[in-house]
Amino acid sequence: MQRLRLDIAYDGTDFKGWQKQSGQDVQTVQGALERALKKLTTEDISTCGSGRTDAGVHALMQVVHFDLPSSVNLEKIDWKRGLNRFLPPSVRIQEVFQSPQDFHALKSATSKVYRYQFQSGGNENPTASRYALWQQSPLDVDYLNGLSQPLIGRHDFESFQTAGTELATTVRNLYKIEWSQGANNIVYCEIEGNGFLKQMVRNIVGTLTHRYWSKELKPQDIQGILDKKSRSAAFGTAPALGLCLTQVKYPAELDKKCIKS
Amino acid sequence: MQRLRLDIAYDGTDFKGWQKQSGQDVQTVQGALERALKKLTTEDISTCGSGRTDAGVHALMQVVHFDLPSSVNLEKIDWKRGLNRFLPPSVRIQEVFQSPQDFHALKSATSKVYRYQFQSGGNENPTASRYALWQQSPLDVDYLNGLSQPLIGRHDFESFQTAGTELATTVRNLYKIEWSQGANNIVYCEIEGNGFLKQMVRNIVGTLTHRYWSKELKPQDIQGILDKKSRSAAFGTAPALGLCLTQVKYPAELDKKCIKS
Repeated sequence: MQRLRLDIAYDGTDFKGWQKQSGQDVQTVQGALERALKKLTTEDISTCGSGRTDAGVHALMQVVHFDLPSSVNLEKIDWKRGLNRFLPPSVRIQEVFQSPQDFHALKSATSKVYRYQFQSGGNENPTASRYALWQQSPLDVDYLNGLSQPLIGRHDFESFQTAGTELATTVRNLYKIEWSQGANNIVYCEIEGNGFLKQMVRNIVGTLTHRYWSKELKPQDIQGILDKKSRSAAFGTAPALGLCLTQVKYPAELDKKCIKS
Repeated sequence: MQRLRLDIAYDGTDFKGWQKQSGQDVQTVQGALERALKKLTTEDISTCGSGRTDAGVHALMQVVHFDLPSSVNLEKIDWKRGLNRFLPPSVRIQEVFQSPQDFHALKSATSKVYRYQFQSGGNENPTASRYALWQQSPLDVDYLNGLSQPLIGRHDFESFQTAGTELATTVRNLYKIEWSQGANNIVYCEIEGNGFLKQMVRNIVGTLTHRYWSKELKPQDIQGILDKKSRSAAFGTAPALGLCLTQVKYPAELDKKCIKS
């Protein structure tokens, strides 16, 4: 059986998240993808993504795998062009790979990178507001980098988890939280980790930028929030629109075995 | 009578252009602005913009003036915050000025700057597709800069005018056409002129990028198209989504007399 891997980008604004849901009227990215696969192959194909993204969250690189039914001739289909024809313009296939059977979009992933974007200070630019949250007072990236330090490393992130999912453990490893100033008043927060709890990135960003103009939060306060292991210890959830899944990483030897189709 | 000047930014995607139209159901930016002015002041106020933008065209700086009815107390209103409260999120007031009576958004303007954006080569990024036209083959900015040379200066641009407007003259002065490579595969074409005919920027950009991958068009062909003074001599109209009005320029002494409110 041939396994395929798809790298996908999407504008999440008009979707109720990645994960398909029962009910024809719920627009999800995975639902749109599986409908496109059905149109292209005439078969019902179930896909497995690297993880869910919330309603309104974007992706530059979401990764998916699925196994091709034996009735479908891999070589006879122009996968990228064919899927893009049947997908809405807000979802675009970036790459199609023939992958080994041991490639698993979710289980093989070693880390994921998310990016949160702000419009930091100045007037709100409505042509950026779909992807970058406007903050009237400029963000101080040095202050925010300092504030982020206690979160880096292996910790129990229960304080930053939105309730609703039963998990064996809420311990995760954050490899990086990096705030940086881009052009046109855009400020980026890039977060890489081995896995993320529900709304964890948005809860972290919302907490780090809580009353950021007063700089009243100190790194020891963030440490204290972690230590309390309670969602109520942290602050609000940053809006979905600023968040984008930018990369899913796999072991190099596995990546190499994925051959562009 | 007090005259006010507004500098406005908008995402044009969901509007039928700048210019207000009769009929309640036609969503135009000027219509949205005048409805917001009515809500804020309870008066019917007519605005004058620096020029029309087509349906789907964006603006980072559209300029508007209007005269305040004597019933409205200028000082009692927080104009920027108040208008932004009543405007849709896709339209944002950037600045409000008290301007002299001889300031006229259209007639005082000395030049306008438009920017056309492409996604040049690589995969289509759906989070850029609302503002940048995707071209599968990369654009060669050096080639396009060379091709643009004959258009710079004072010319009869009839070949680049979409029919539908009666004008005394189709002669305009283009001060600049500059193609440049930005980050993330974005290519910009910046065009500045003392005035623009209907869809002139989009007709110029559409013509310059006509079969751009073959580079079969030479500067002398562009000169030939100008000389023919016929729309049929030029090529297609670039889609509205890539276009943005980025600046309207006024004489420095007049700008100085506009006082931030």
